[in-house]
Amino acid sequence: MIISMQPDATKEQLDAVFARIEELGYKSHPIFGEERTVIGVVGRLHRPEKELFEGLDGVDTVVYISKPFKLVSKELKREASVFDIGGVKVGGTELMLAAGPCSVESEAQIVEIAREVKAGGAKFLRGGAYKPRTSPFSFQGLGREGLEFMATARAETGLKIVTEVLSIKDIDLVAEYADVIQIGARNCQNFALLEAVGKARKPVLYKRGMSTTVNEWLQAADYILDGGNEEVILCERGIRTFETATRNTLDTNAVALVKEMSHLPIIVDPSHATGHDHLVIPAARAGIAAGADGLIIEVHTHPEKAWSDGHQCLRPARFRDCVAQVRRIAEAMGRTIG
Amino acid sequence: MIISMQPDATKEQLDAVFARIEELGYKSHPIFGEERTVIGVVGRLHRPEKELFEGLDGVDTVVYISKPFKLVSKELKREASVFDIGGVKVGGTELMLAAGPCSVESEAQIVEIAREVKAGGAKFLRGGAYKPRTSPFSFQGLGREGLEFMATARAETGLKIVTEVLSIKDIDLVAEYADVIQIGARNCQNFALLEAVGKARKPVLYKRGMSTTVNEWLQAADYILDGGNEEVILCERGIRTFETATRNTLDTNAVALVKEMSHLPIIVDPSHATGHDHLVIPAARAGIAAGADGLIIEVHTHPEKAWSDGHQCLRPARFRDCVAQVRRIAEAMGRTIG
Amino acid sequence: MIISMQPDATKEQLDAVFARIEELGYKSHPIFGEERTVIGVVGRLHRPEKELFEGLDGVDTVVYISKPFKLVSKELKREASVFDIGGVKVGGTELMLAAGPCSVESEAQIVEIAREVKAGGAKFLRGGAYKPRTSPFSFQGLGREGLEFMATARAETGLKIVTEVLSIKDIDLVAEYADVIQIGARNCQNFALLEAVGKARKPVLYKRGMSTTVNEWLQAADYILDGGNEEVILCERGIRTFETATRNTLDTNAVALVKEMSHLPIIVDPSHATGHDHLVIPAARAGIAAGADGLIIEVHTHPEKAWSDGHQCLRPARFRDCVAQVRRIAEAMGRTIG
Amino acid sequence: MIISMQPDATKEQLDAVFARIEELGYKSHPIFGEERTVIGVVGRLHRPEKELFEGLDGVDTVVYISKPFKLVSKELKREASVFDIGGVKVGGTELMLAAGPCSVESEAQIVEIAREVKAGGAKFLRGGAYKPRTSPFSFQGLGREGLEFMATARAETGLKIVTEVLSIKDIDLVAEYADVIQIGARNCQNFALLEAVGKARKPVLYKRGMSTTVNEWLQAADYILDGGNEEVILCERGIRTFETATRNTLDTNAVALVKEMSHLPIIVDPSHATGHDHLVIPAARAGIAAGADGLIIEVHTHPEKAWSDGHQCLRPARFRDCVAQVRRIAEAMGRTIG
Repeated sequence: MIISMQPDATKEQLDAVFARIEELGYKSHPIFGEERTVIGVVGRLHRPEKELFEGLDGVDTVVYISKPFKLVSKELKREASVFDIGGVKVGGTELMLAAGPCSVESEAQIVEIAREVKAGGAKFLRGGAYKPRTSPFSFQGLGREGLEFMATARAETGLKIVTEVLSIKDIDLVAEYADVIQIGARNCQNFALLEAVGKARKPVLYKRGMSTTVNEWLQAADYILDGGNEEVILCERGIRTFETATRNTLDTNAVALVKEMSHLPIIVDPSHATGHDHLVIPAARAGIAAGADGLIIEVHTHPEKAWSDGHQCLRPARFRDCVAQVRRIAEAMGRTIG
Repeated sequence: MIISMQPDATKEQLDAVFARIEELGYKSHPIFGEERTVIGVVGRLHRPEKELFEGLDGVDTVVYISKPFKLVSKELKREASVFDIGGVKVGGTELMLAAGPCSVESEAQIVEIAREVKAGGAKFLRGGAYKPRTSPFSFQGLGREGLEFMATARAETGLKIVTEVLSIKDIDLVAEYADVIQIGARNCQNFALLEAVGKARKPVLYKRGMSTTVNEWLQAADYILDGGNEEVILCERGIRTFETATRNTLDTNAVALVKEMSHLPIIVDPSHATGHDHLVIPAARAGIAAGADGLIIEVHTHPEKAWSDGHQCLRPARFRDCVAQVRRIAEAMGRTIG
Repeated sequence: MIISMQPDATKEQLDAVFARIEELGYKSHPIFGEERTVIGVVGRLHRPEKELFEGLDGVDTVVYISKPFKLVSKELKREASVFDIGGVKVGGTELMLAAGPCSVESEAQIVEIAREVKAGGAKFLRGGAYKPRTSPFSFQGLGREGLEFMATARAETGLKIVTEVLSIKDIDLVAEYADVIQIGARNCQNFALLEAVGKARKPVLYKRGMSTTVNEWLQAADYILDGGNEEVILCERGIRTFETATRNTLDTNAVALVKEMSHLPIIVDPSHATGHDHLVIPAARAGIAAGADGLIIEVHTHPEKAWSDGHQCLRPARFRDCVAQVRRIAEAMGRTIG
Repeated sequence: MIISMQPDATKEQLDAVFARIEELGYKSHPIFGEERTVIGVVGRLHRPEKELFEGLDGVDTVVYISKPFKLVSKELKREASVFDIGGVKVGGTELMLAAGPCSVESEAQIVEIAREVKAGGAKFLRGGAYKPRTSPFSFQGLGREGLEFMATARAETGLKIVTEVLSIKDIDLVAEYADVIQIGARNCQNFALLEAVGKARKPVLYKRGMSTTVNEWLQAADYILDGGNEEVILCERGIRTFETATRNTLDTNAVALVKEMSHLPIIVDPSHATGHDHLVIPAARAGIAAGADGLIIEVHTHPEKAWSDGHQCLRPARFRDCVAQVRRIAEAMGRTIG
C-alpha cells in the first residue's frame, strides 16, 4: 500500500501517520521526495486496510500496489535509483563497469589484474574470496586472506571491491573489506542471507538465480530492501535452459522487464551468461543495448592457469576491445562508460 | 569433407574429382572462389574416406568438417553469404528490415500497413496467409486470397513479400507470390518440408524451433542447402524456457554463435521473442547489438482488432521509434538500416 | 459447444439439428451413446451461439466446452475410448505393448526382432522405415523396402505394425502397410501432416513434441479428430529440460493429466524418455503406475550394431525382464499385459 | 580415491594409513565392512596421488572414483544405506511415509492432522515452522512456537518430526525438536547451510533444487557427508520446466538414476511435484514404481483454509486412498508401506 502525503503535510502529520502504521503492526518505507513524501506500508500477515489511513490529516491518497513485489517496484518509487559508492555513481548515465578474476589466487595475481582492468576502464574490481563450488572437494577460495589481497589491490589502484558472501557468519568480515557485497545465483532464494545483508551497511550486487523468474527475483529483492538496505544492484547472469552450446542463456528480455518494473539498477554478467570468452563481447553489447546499467566481466591475465572459470575469462587486450565496442553501444543509448 | 583444389587446377582435374565423388555415391557442393575451388563432399550413409581423394590430380588438401552441420558451416565457406533479393541485399552492411501484421486480414488492411511500414523504413512486408494455429478451431489464414492481397500491397509499395508456408502442397503457390518463403518455428524439424523448400527457387526465412538447439537448427538448415537452395536466412525468434513473464526468451547468445559458426545471415524476431509490444524495442536493439543481420517485426495499424497476436504488434508510430532507436545501434555496429 | 439430445429424440429431430449446424457453417461431431446422442459443434471463425440451438425440438441442453481442446476432451465424451486394431484392443484393461528396433535395417533383422518381441509379450512391432534425422547426411531409413520387410515380419509373427510417416506424400503408402501410423515428436505441431492423417483410415500413434505443453498437444490432436479420424493414441516420450544426464525427462504428470482431461488412450515411450537402456525399466514401471495405457519400447538383438539409437535399445532378455516387472505394476493397477 | 585394505589388515596398519592421509592434508572417510575396510580419501585442492598409498602395509588396491561426486557414490559404498531413525528404518524394505501440512498453523491444527496421517499409515509428520516464502511480506512460519506444537503432536502420536531449517543460526533449535531436518529446494546449493547441517547430529531430508541437475545435487550432498553426517535422505520434488499445467515436473528418471549411482535413500514429494491435489496419487504411484524409498505428502484437514499450498494438500480421506493405492505398487516392487 502506498500513502501519498499532501505536498504541504507537516512533520507532525507525517509522524502521526508513521505512529498509526506502527501501532497497527505494519512497517513504513518512506520516500522523501522533493515535492511530497510517499510512504510504502507493508505487513507480513495481512494486507493493510486503506480505510485505516485515508482519514488521517495530511494524507492525500492511499492506493494498493498491484505487483507482488513492493519495495523494489516503480509503483512505489518512479525515478530510477542512483547510488553513490565511494564517489562512483551507479544507475545514472555512466555505466557501472566491474571486472576481475573469478577467484583471488594470490596478491600478485589480483594486483596485476586490477591494474589491467583499471587501465581498461573498470572502476570496480571483482574477485572471489569465498567461492560457491558445486563439489566440496573443489577449491573454496582463500577466505580472509583473499579479502586482504583485494584490499591491497584497491590501495594500489583505487578500484572499488565487489566480492561474494556465502554465509551470514562472514557478512561482517566481507563488509569490512568490500565496497559492494555480492549475492550469487545459488543464493538467490536464500532468504536468511538476503535478510542478513539487508541489515548490512554496504551496497549489494544481487544476482538472479539460474531458474528464478523475474517476478520471484524482484520479490526476493524485497527481503534486502525490507531490512533497510536500499542500495541493491540487480545482475542478470544468464538462465538455465535446454541449450547446451552455451553455459547459460542471457535473458535480455529480463533486463528490459526489470527496467520497466523496478527503480533498481540492473547490470549484466556476460561471462557467466555465455561461458565462452569468444561470446562475451556480443553478450556485453546486447545487454547494454537492452538497457542494462553496467557490466561485470571476468578478466584474467593467464586464463589458461586460472583456478576456476578460465574458459570464460577475457585477457586484458580483449577486455579493452570489449570496452571499446561497448562504448559505441553505450553512446547510441545516450550513456557513457569507463 | 572438404577438398581444396590447387589454385591452378584445371577444369579437367576438377571434373575428374566431381566424377569420382559421384561414382563413390557422394554428393558435391562446390564453391568457386576467386583464388581456388573448394568442394564440400557429403554422403548419407558413410563418411567419405579422405584417402580416396587425396591422390587425385589437382587436389591440394582434404580435411574433414568437424561440425555436425556441413553446408551451412564456415568451415566450408568462410565469407558471410550475401543474397540479392530483387535488388535488396541481405547479409551485407545494410540490415534487413521486414515488418507487417501477423495475419493478412483484408486487402485494405495489408495495403494500409504496407504503406506505414515502408514509410518506417522496411523493405520487406511480412504477413501470414497460412497460419500455424495451435487449435484447428482458430482462424487459419485467408490462403490464396491472402497471397493476392499481399501482391497488391507489393504493387502499391514495392516492398518484397515474406510469407509462411505450412505444407509441401502449397509451396508452388506461395513461391509464385512470395519473394521470401518463411518456415515457421513449429516446422523447424519438419524435414520433409525443409527438403521441399530446398528445391524451391526462392530465398527461405528459416525460424529456429522453440526448443531446438543451435546445433540441431544448423544441421536441419543443411536439408535446405542440400536440396540446392543456398539462400537461407536464419531467424532467432525466442526459445521456450521456464520464464512466463515473456512469451519466449530471446537468445542473443545464439545470434552470436551462429555468426561465428555459419556463413548464413541471421535476423531476429523481437515480436515473438517477447510477446509484448512494450518489450519489442529493447529486444530489437539487443538482437542487432549481438550481431544480427536484420529484424522482422509485427506491425498493425489497429492492434486491438488484430485477428491474432495483437498484444505483440507495434503501432506505426512506435515502429518508427523502434527503427530510429535501432538505427543508432546499427551505426555503432558499423551498419545501416532503412 | 455440446448439444445433448433428449433420450427419446427422434432421427428426424437429430437430422434437423445436423442441418441447422451445417447451415450455420459449423461442423458436427456426433457421439451416439447408449442412452442418448451428444453432438460436438465446432467452428473455425466464431464460437457458435447457444441460443441458435436451444429451441430446437429434441434438444435437451446446450453447453460450451471450457477447455481450449474440444474433440479430445472428456467434456465431449466421458468414457475412455477403446479401439479395436485388427482384433487387439487399445485403451481397455489390457495394456498396449509395442516393441522393436529404431530403424528397419534388413528383412532378417526385423523378422528376428519381431519373433523376440512377440515371445516377450508384444502385440505390436515398431520399426522406422522413414527416419526423422537431425542431419540430412545421416541414414534416412529404407523407405518402401523397410515397409515391405515389416510386412514380412507381420506375416511371420502376426504382430501389428507401428511405423512413422514424415511427409503427406507418403501417407498412402505407409497406410497400406501399417496397422498404426506414427506421428513423431518433431511433427507434433506440423498441422498440415496432422490434418492429412486425420483423413487416413488408420489409427494414429501421436507423440508429444519435446517442448509441447499438454494443452497445446491436446489442441493439436483435435486436428486429427477434426479430419474424421478418431482413433488416436497419444504417446508421452519425454520432454526437453535442463537435465542432461538423461536424453529427455519422462513427464508422468502429463500422463495423469491427459487421463483426467481426455478420453483418448495414452502410452509411454520409456526408450526416448530416458535415452539409456539401464533406465528403461524404471521408466516403464513409472509410466504404467501413473496410469498409462501401454508402452512402446526399443528392442534390438544387436544394439551395439544398431544403425540408430543403439544405446537406448533393450536386448530381448532385458525386454522380457521389463515386461515381467511391468506386469506386476499392471496388476497392481488392475490391468494386464502381454 | 578409494583405498581397499586387505581383509587381514591390522588396526596398526589401518592407523598408519589414516596418519599418512592426514599428514598429506587429505581427509579419510572409512567404511568398516564385514570383510574389509575401505577408505574414501578426498582433498580440496589436489587430487591425491595413488602412488603415495599403494606401497603402504595392508593396502590391497587404490583406485580413483570416476564420478564427480564422491562420498554419496556407490563406487565408495556398494550397499544401499539404511538409517534407523528412532526405531523407524529408512532405506530398507519398508517405504518411508511422511505426511502433514505445509505450515504449522496452531497446536490444534497440527495435532489433528498428526492423528489423521498416523491413522493413514504415516510414521513421520511433516510441517513447516520456518517457511521459505518468495515474498518477505508473506507468512514466514511460527518459528519456535511451531516447533513446540510439533513436539506436542509427536508426544500425542509417536510420529517422528520432519521440519525445514532455513538458516544456520536456527539449526541447533530445529535439531532440538526435529527427528529429521529438512533442507528445501531453494537451499539446494546453499553450501554454507549444507556444511552446517553436516555437523548436526540429526538425519537430513535433502530436497533437489528446482533446476539442479542430478550430478550437481549429488555433489552438493557430499557437503553434508563431508561434514560427518551420513544420514542423508534425498528427495525429488519436481523440476522447473516449460510446462505450466503442473507446478513442477516430477522427474522419475532422476529417482532411477540416483538409485543407480548413490547408496543414499531417495524419496518423492508428489505434492510439490504436481501442485494439484488431484495429481498427487498418480505421482506417488509413479515415484514408488520408479524405485523411490518413500513419500512425503502434504495433508490438511481443511485445505481450503490452509495458510499456504492449500490446492496441493490431500484431505485425510484422500490420503488414505493414496496410501492404499501406493501399497499395491509397493507390493509389486517387493516393498511395504505404513
